[in-house]
Amino acid sequence: MIRDLASHVTVIDVTHHIPPHDVRAGSLALVRAVQYLVPGVVLAVVDPGVGTERRAVAVEIGDGKAVFVGPDNGLLAPAVAMTGGAGRAVSLTDEAYHLPAPGPTFAGRDVFAPVAAHLASGVDLLDLGEPIDPVTMLPGLLPMTRDGADGLLAEVLWVDHFGNVQLNVDPEEIEALGERVALRWADQRRTARRAHTYGDLKPGEIGLVVDSYGLVSIALDRRPAAEELGLHAGDAVTLGEAS
Amino acid sequence: MIRDLASHVTVIDVTHHIPPHDVRAGSLALVRAVQYLVPGVVLAVVDPGVGTERRAVAVEIGDGKAVFVGPDNGLLAPAVAMTGGAGRAVSLTDEAYHLPAPGPTFAGRDVFAPVAAHLASGVDLLDLGEPIDPVTMLPGLLPMTRDGADGLLAEVLWVDHFGNVQLNVDPEEIEALGERVALRWADQRRTARRAHTYGDLKPGEIGLVVDSYGLVSIALDRRPAAEELGLHAGDAVTLGEAS
Amino acid sequence: MIRDLASHVTVIDVTHHIPPHDVRAGSLALVRAVQYLVPGVVLAVVDPGVGTERRAVAVEIGDGKAVFVGPDNGLLAPAVAMTGGAGRAVSLTDEAYHLPAPGPTFAGRDVFAPVAAHLASGVDLLDLGEPIDPVTMLPGLLPMTRDGADGLLAEVLWVDHFGNVQLNVDPEEIEALGERVALRWADQRRTARRAHTYGDLKPGEIGLVVDSYGLVSIALDRRPAAEELGLHAGDAVTLGEAS
Repeated sequence: MIRDLASHVTVIDVTHHIPPHDVRAGSLALVRAVQYLVPGVVLAVVDPGVGTERRAVAVEIGDGKAVFVGPDNGLLAPAVAMTGGAGRAVSLTDEAYHLPAPGPTFAGRDVFAPVAAHLASGVDLLDLGEPIDPVTMLPGLLPMTRDGADGLLAEVLWVDHFGNVQLNVDPEEIEALGERVALRWADQRRTARRAHTYGDLKPGEIGLVVDSYGLVSIALDRRPAAEELGLHAGDAVTLGEAS
Repeated sequence: MIRDLASHVTVIDVTHHIPPHDVRAGSLALVRAVQYLVPGVVLAVVDPGVGTERRAVAVEIGDGKAVFVGPDNGLLAPAVAMTGGAGRAVSLTDEAYHLPAPGPTFAGRDVFAPVAAHLASGVDLLDLGEPIDPVTMLPGLLPMTRDGADGLLAEVLWVDHFGNVQLNVDPEEIEALGERVALRWADQRRTARRAHTYGDLKPGEIGLVVDSYGLVSIALDRRPAAEELGLHAGDAVTLGEAS
Repeated sequence: MIRDLASHVTVIDVTHHIPPHDVRAGSLALVRAVQYLVPGVVLAVVDPGVGTERRAVAVEIGDGKAVFVGPDNGLLAPAVAMTGGAGRAVSLTDEAYHLPAPGPTFAGRDVFAPVAAHLASGVDLLDLGEPIDPVTMLPGLLPMTRDGADGLLAEVLWVDHFGNVQLNVDPEEIEALGERVALRWADQRRTARRAHTYGDLKPGEIGLVVDSYGLVSIALDRRPAAEELGLHAGDAVTLGEAS
């Protein structure tokens, strides 16, 4: 569709591997990639509410260098925030910029892709539909850490392709804990060691490595930590002082 | 290979996820995409008979706006029919347009891709090999619905990425059944409700939704209907009046 | 990243499906594709030692028509050898050609991709870092066949998408064995038949087919030989005279 409407643009596929209906995972993937994508038109679709009352939106970031196109379900919010915050925004109500659709269930093809192509071809944001106040958009759902009795209460954001367990933890948040850190989750209690890279880890040793997005991840050397430790996206993990 | 021979063309990958040897699934994927692909050269390969007597063909659709390239095993037939029907066709017998091959088992790389590239560069169809009569090509195998004693006898065409179960049923065929429809398959009997979108479905409710290709699909809200109902591609399903 | 730094280049994704940390599998995938990739800049990353002392390198092949960029862990060696052997080589020590990185664990994005883009834009190899002697690079690990008491001692290089079992055997090596070949592995002993294509095989028959890379593979017709015969990458297989 994009090729048909805007044959001159460069299309970059970031990923087609978001788990079905997982808006949070899509949102995280977008946050990880977005600094390398703007300026440009960023099209993102994880859309379990397709065809319902959820709005389809286009949101310009503050400096006008990028526009995000997708469903108003929290998917875009963290990436928009990370790249400067929302400026102008519209609900994609003008069907002249959509594709005639054989069914109501594929807005990626019939609404979002055509709109992204028109934007890339120079159509103005405000031509695409009714202006909306960005504060009315659904916020994102990325969890924040909290301080607890036993240490920092964190959450598993993501398990990557290698089985590394990414936490919502900035390295500075655990600086005071030193090189050895007590990890607790479910009924488990293990000790991890801060390491510079995966390859620094000994067999059997659990590592805390700053990953490629600048966050702390739980890792084993060349083995999937998530599987071996029984950790999944959304699990709560406490990081405290090792005894 | 295409880049080497026709560096100016835009290559669009539709999918590399057809199950091995599944000509029917490839054929369905092609039918779904084809209206968004033409005009152009359409290269499709699912080719369990590679290297045998099955012909390699290029088929022009009636109005000359597109050429389909692939094995003569039924893969191309439904898409050709859907885009206007076959005009000129050739068997790809002229090896000057192929790649010298280290083995006989990768016609996608050694025959079809070079031929598609040459076509995109302006080589005439009839230069590629012996003309053939399109009626000698293997027909496709998409099943038609039939009327049965208990209702419409349908078949599962496809289970999509989300687990939705696409039937070979046009919405008009079940219009007379009303909002509630009795579904039977194997030893199961369940009642489904016609719904506009997946999101309209209540937890536990089975829906019949017109999907993005304009066909009726069996769906649950945000859960994989195929897995939960035990339905697979090729299964027979009867749609009748709900009691 | 490559688009940002070298918007004019054509980027071809060969595969993103190498199993995690499997340098040998990546190396084999690269060898299979490389003759269709050069001339050009070839970027390959399977990098379990990312962030450790392993060097990041760029290696020009003898005639200067291509440069390979990747980790110095054996990944590149077979492809470099196959395309003419190493000429000039550098360790990628000049960080001016890298991306400022939020963490030490994604050299594909932060080191190799920017370097490949700069090379494609005309930066000279020797500007990228310290010259190194190619003989100091880690060699590849592709196994050679040996003659044994019971026949040719071979190894499973690869199981492809269809379950075909590729051996490290050139067809000429088993020419003398004739049409029927005794296969032994683990505690199994089976007889295979040399066949021209997969489709020539009868149900239940095991075939030896010259695959699309010119090597001998063990195959069944339309069924996964690896799964049904219990063979995996790295397994030893002996090919001898059938009784």
